[in-house]
Parts: sequence; C-alpha cells; structure tokens
Amino acid sequence: MNYSYVSHLYCPKCSKTYSTEEENHLCTCGSPLLVDYKLEELSKALAPGDLVNRQPDLWRYHELLPVKSEENKISLGEGMTPLVEFPSLGGDMNIPHLLMKDEGIIPTGAFKARGAAVGVSKAKELDVKELAMPTNGNAGAAWSLYAARAGMSSTIVMPIDAPSITRNECALSGANLFLVNGLISDAGKIIAKAAEEKGMYDVSTLKEPYRIEGKKTMGLEIAEQLNWQLPDVILYPTGGGVGLIGIYKALNELQQLGWVSPEQKLPRLVAVQSKGCAPIVEAWKEGKHESSFWENSETIAFGINVPKAIGDFLVLDALYETDGCAIAVDDKDLLEEQKQIAQLEGSFVCPEGAASFLAARQLRKENWIKENEQVVVLNTGAGIKYPDTVDIEVPILEPGDSLYR
Amino acid sequence: MNYSYVSHLYCPKCSKTYSTEEENHLCTCGSPLLVDYKLEELSKALAPGDLVNRQPDLWRYHELLPVKSEENKISLGEGMTPLVEFPSLGGDMNIPHLLMKDEGIIPTGAFKARGAAVGVSKAKELDVKELAMPTNGNAGAAWSLYAARAGMSSTIVMPIDAPSITRNECALSGANLFLVNGLISDAGKIIAKAAEEKGMYDVSTLKEPYRIEGKKTMGLEIAEQLNWQLPDVILYPTGGGVGLIGIYKALNELQQLGWVSPEQKLPRLVAVQSKGCAPIVEAWKEGKHESSFWENSETIAFGINVPKAIGDFLVLDALYETDGCAIAVDDKDLLEEQKQIAQLEGSFVCPEGAASFLAARQLRKENWIKENEQVVVLNTGAGIKYPDTVDIEVPILEPGDSLYR
Repeated sequence: MNYSYVSHLYCPKCSKTYSTEEENHLCTCGSPLLVDYKLEELSKALAPGDLVNRQPDLWRYHELLPVKSEENKISLGEGMTPLVEFPSLGGDMNIPHLLMKDEGIIPTGAFKARGAAVGVSKAKELDVKELAMPTNGNAGAAWSLYAARAGMSSTIVMPIDAPSITRNECALSGANLFLVNGLISDAGKIIAKAAEEKGMYDVSTLKEPYRIEGKKTMGLEIAEQLNWQLPDVILYPTGGGVGLIGIYKALNELQQLGWVSPEQKLPRLVAVQSKGCAPIVEAWKEGKHESSFWENSETIAFGINVPKAIGDFLVLDALYETDGCAIAVDDKDLLEEQKQIAQLEGSFVCPEGAASFLAARQLRKENWIKENEQVVVLNTGAGIKYPDTVDIEVPILEPGDSLYR
Repeated sequence: MNYSYVSHLYCPKCSKTYSTEEENHLCTCGSPLLVDYKLEELSKALAPGDLVNRQPDLWRYHELLPVKSEENKISLGEGMTPLVEFPSLGGDMNIPHLLMKDEGIIPTGAFKARGAAVGVSKAKELDVKELAMPTNGNAGAAWSLYAARAGMSSTIVMPIDAPSITRNECALSGANLFLVNGLISDAGKIIAKAAEEKGMYDVSTLKEPYRIEGKKTMGLEIAEQLNWQLPDVILYPTGGGVGLIGIYKALNELQQLGWVSPEQKLPRLVAVQSKGCAPIVEAWKEGKHESSFWENSETIAFGINVPKAIGDFLVLDALYETDGCAIAVDDKDLLEEQKQIAQLEGSFVCPEGAASFLAARQLRKENWIKENEQVVVLNTGAGIKYPDTVDIEVPILEPGDSLYR
C-alpha cells in the first residue's frame, strides 16, 4: 500500500505529460498542469470506510495527494473544517438545506492553508530551498508560514492594499516581504523576474501544480461529511479559482474511485465574484472558455480581486460541465449579508464568504436554486482577518456607571 | 443510553448540592459550583473505542457534558483542535517532545468558543432569553456569537483597551455592547448590577457553572489525541484559570472512568502568567490557597490580565495536587518567543500562547522540566486576533521594480 497513488502531471490543454519527480511549473504550451493518480489501482486498495480511524485533517486523503513520502508532510493540523447547518439564515433566504463549509477554522484562518500545506510538502520532497510568490495576502501568509515550518525561505510580494494582518503573518514567519504600490498582477511580474534571476521556486497560482491538490480536499471533505451523498449546489468565491477547480477535480476522482456512485449528478458549481471584478461572470454569460482582463478592478472582497486568472478556462469548464453558473454581487449588499450571518447564525465570515451567501440568496430568488435543494457555501476565511470591514460605534462608560438609569 | 450523564451541581468549598434543572450561579457560600456526573454508570455504558465514529468536535464527549437534550446543542463545529508536534522549537529549547494544542483553530479564533458553546447550549436548555457578561474581549466575542446562533440576546461590557477585533465580533453578532474606561473588574461590577436589575442571566467567569465543562474538553481531547497516555507536563496561560480548572477536572473524570489507567500520574499542571499580573504565581510561591488582588496590573497578553480570579483556589489546588507550579514571564521576551515560534514552526500564536512557550523554555532551563518529558503547551488563540503585537517595517516597490538590482 503506497502513501500516495500519484502517477504523473498532464496538460489539460495539449495533453503533454510530465514527471512529478522533478520541478515542473507550466506546460511548454503555457497551460497550468494537473496531477493524475492511479485511481483504478487505488479503488481496489482503499474504501471510504478505511478513513474512519484517521486523523481529522486533510492528510487522511494522502493516497489522493502528490506527496510520496510521509516524512515530507508539513502539517499544522489543517483540514476537516466544520460543515455547519445554517437553518436560520436558510429560512431567511428560503433555502432550508443550507450549509456552510467553514474554511476560517484552519491554520492561518483561510483556506489557503490547504494549498500551502500540500504545496510546501511537495516542494520539500523536490528538495526546494527557496520559494517565491505574489499574493493578495492570505496565500502569502499561508505559504510563508508553512515554508518556515519546512525550513525553507520565502520571498513574498503583495499589494499595499492587501489586508494588513497578512503582512504581519508573512513578516513574522521570517519571509522576505515586499509591498507593491499596485495590484497582484504587478506583484506577479516582480516575482517572475526575481524567480528567474535567482532560481527561486515560483509558486504563483497554478504555476505550481500541487496547490490544487491541497484545495481539492475541500471537495473530498464535503463528500465525506455528507456521507458520500453530494449536495445539489456548491457556491465558491472565485478569484484565481483554484478552489473551484480543485473541488471539481475531487468530485470527478471520487466518481472514478466509485466512492460516490456514478448515477449521482455532480453538484452545480457556482463561481461568485464581485461586480467590481467579474471576468469569469462576463465570460460565462457569453459562453466563452476564457476570460478577458478586467480593467480597474475593485472590491472590498480583496481575495477575489483577480482581473485575469491563469486557470480561467478550467473554472469555466467546471461551470459548463456541471450545469453551474457564475454570478456577481454588490459590495454594499455583501456587508449587509455578513451582518445577517452573524446575527442569525453566530458566524463572522470573511467578505468573500459573505459574497457567496449573498449569491445563494440571489440565485434562490431567481429560482435557479430550488427550495428543497441542498446548498453548500464555502466561507473561505475567518472574518477576524478583515477587521476594517466592520464599522461600529460603541458607547463608552466610566467605572461605576450603570447601564440603565 | 443517555445523551448526558450529568448528575448535579456541587460546591467545592462547602459541599452543598444544587440541581442542573434550574438556573444556578454561585453557591450561597460565595463559591463557584462544579458539575458532577454519574461516572460509574457511564463507565459501564461507554468505552473510548465508541468515540471513533463520532464527529471531530467537542460534542463527541456529550455524555460528559451537561446538556441533556441534543436539540439544545448550539454548535459551530468547535473542538478537536490540532495537537501539533514542535520538533524545531523543541530542539531549540531542549524539549524534544514538545507539542502545541492549537486553540486558534476554532470558531472565533480562541478557546473561549468551547465554554460559550456548552454554556449557551445549557442556557438554552434552561430557557434563558438574555445573557450578560463582562469580558477581556475573546469571551464576549464567543458568547455573543453563540448566543446569536441560539436566538438569545446578550449584553457585553469590555475594557476600552481590549483587542479591537473582539469589539467587531460582539457588535456584528447584534449584542448590546459597551466599553468601559477601566479593567474587567469594573466591567464586572456594571454587569452584576445590570443583571440584577433586569434579571439577565449572568455568565461572568465561574458565576455560570457550565463554561468549565466546555473548557474541560481540551483535557479530554489531549488524552484522546495521545491515545489515552497522558503527557508529563501541561502549560496553560492563566487569567481566570477556567481552562486549567477544566483540564484538571477532565483528567480526574477520565481516571474515574478508567479511560486512563489509575497508575498513570496526572500531568504536572503549570499556570503561566505575566510579571505584570501574577497573583496566582505569588500565591503559589507562598503556598497559599487563595490569591490577593494584583494592583495596577498590566500586560500585552491581555487575556491573562485578571488581577483576582474568582476560581483562584481551584487553580491553586490543581497545581498542588499535580505537583505543578506557577510561573511569570516578561512581556518583552514573550514577543521574541512569538517570533521564534513563527520562524521555526510556522505558527502565529497569540501573546498568551507565546507566554506559555516561554515558560516552558524557562522551566527547562531550571530543569523543572526534564529533557525527555512530553510537554503540551496550550496556545489559547490565533495570533491574527492581535495584529498590534507585531511590529514590522516592509519595503515598498513600484510596479515594474526589480527585487535585485
């Protein structure tokens, strides 16, 4: 029984294959690479019931991850985040079977930890000593902290407007941290140049093939937590879209393994964006398979401020293949939704998560989501990472004061 | 098979007993009350192996919790937080078997969620409609959010210096939030008066007997995660001390159940405080069973700024009974330790957690901790809740700049 059933890397565009035994980034054709597994072999060796005794973290699916030797595993206990029923909010939006997958309950407080854990572990297996990446904040925080745990150094460039707490995380990890007076695309150019000059391992979104594998565990967990019965709809706040690509990949692998029956229809996947940065929504509306660069993008949901995602075609394919859709929401309504979620369900979600709940509400109104459908919304991070989105005024008392006079 | 094996409340000072079927706060003698269970009956009905198929949250121990009916359970998936090996930091402080129990990986980002989940659930079972509490921040955040999920209203008073993010959490939950220009003791007086005037359910530390039960699950989890083999030492940052009391209570219950063998020595419990607020340390040094009010307390580890804990005698008893100790650390060294932890292990712990790692380092130097002992340090919250403790300077680039010229 192998620790990993990884087989090889392949290009989803031109089908060229690559080895997982050496550093590989993009295909020669420019496309991101995906990881393939020996699923038929694995289906004979492992059954869902075998997972029961394993730790409640994402490494419980190690056969479906690319790390071959357990000793390369770099973990802070990430994964198996709660899947929580939201009956009150669900009642309010007339979706009785509404669930939240809460990716705030994970090291670094954001789903980025999954990609970082698996990506850094694989980088260690490939003997990488130094990695580099541009980030909107949370990914840089996660990768630099996991890199530190692996004894690897890291160079991070983030926009000056990225959430300030993520700066602290990078800096505290000992990363070489730089801010750029621009967008993540500007940060990306600086990193690409530096990586080339210094031979650093570039782990920019999808320039590194293993981050998806970490993120796909969200899909594996949703399936396991629902006892291998898939929900009807999954909504995902979409910037780079790696999480959505990963969930789609996971569901397909589970079908191929026979862990979910092939008669089960895959959930309709929904890419949620902000009206201030909606390239995927625009492309989907026009039935296109690639998006165009979104000029002057702006949204308070900073994690989904990605004007052009390198994996856009994979996101769009996942939407088309599952009869899903893409939808953009208003920033101002999003903050109202965030408040509703806290007051009805006691959860302080991040703006990106709030955007996805708001999208569910809109899609229910349009009857795209039917009343009795089971709907899973991904909250991709903890609201506490974005203190500035909450605007409050609080009365101040002196010692000895009384609340009621 | 009952959902809960709760029996009754009892006073650890005068032994008077009370029912769990009605609201009870302090004993008539002024002492906090503790919860007793029908452990002998439970030991015949349940074995550790029966837990394997249960969800990885604190409700897996529902027989050892006071909530009688599952329908009253208010949960956001809290508990079964990671117990992570820290080999690099352990190497650095010459404690090879060093582990962190990471209470940052929980709803609201702090261990307070445990007490709130169980306390609010029991309050719901007792038909409470409105609760009130003073807080140093994190407890108020947790209780107001869980109260919101339960459909209960809450009134919270916190010091003006409490971490600002916890204000946002309370406000977003819809709580009646007030700041006081003073300490938690000032907030406590305001709440006590308001609770009396308005008949609100006062859930101040240990004035409500069920919070301990939530927190004791940290002890249950540590035991289960170590396969029912207890560690040699557990260090805990101690303000009100409820977590430490809870862990001690848990370990005793496990011994009575026979889930850990009676031959196993209980872990030596360590109460960690800051030199700026060390009433428990002072009392322990003098062999006393009660602490004195600490004048002009001050520490950046805000959660342990408690000048006089109502449960001090229970904390001190736990230290004496387990051959433990109490130790105070310097605020300035604490920030250095926090940085070390991030750079060596990739974890951004809260200042209180950093204080406890620093205490482990000092106790190892003094040889109070022996080299080969297994040591568990509680990190009581996520570092991301305290952005101001990290002081950084980051170079700023313009688009098109190069990192290396």
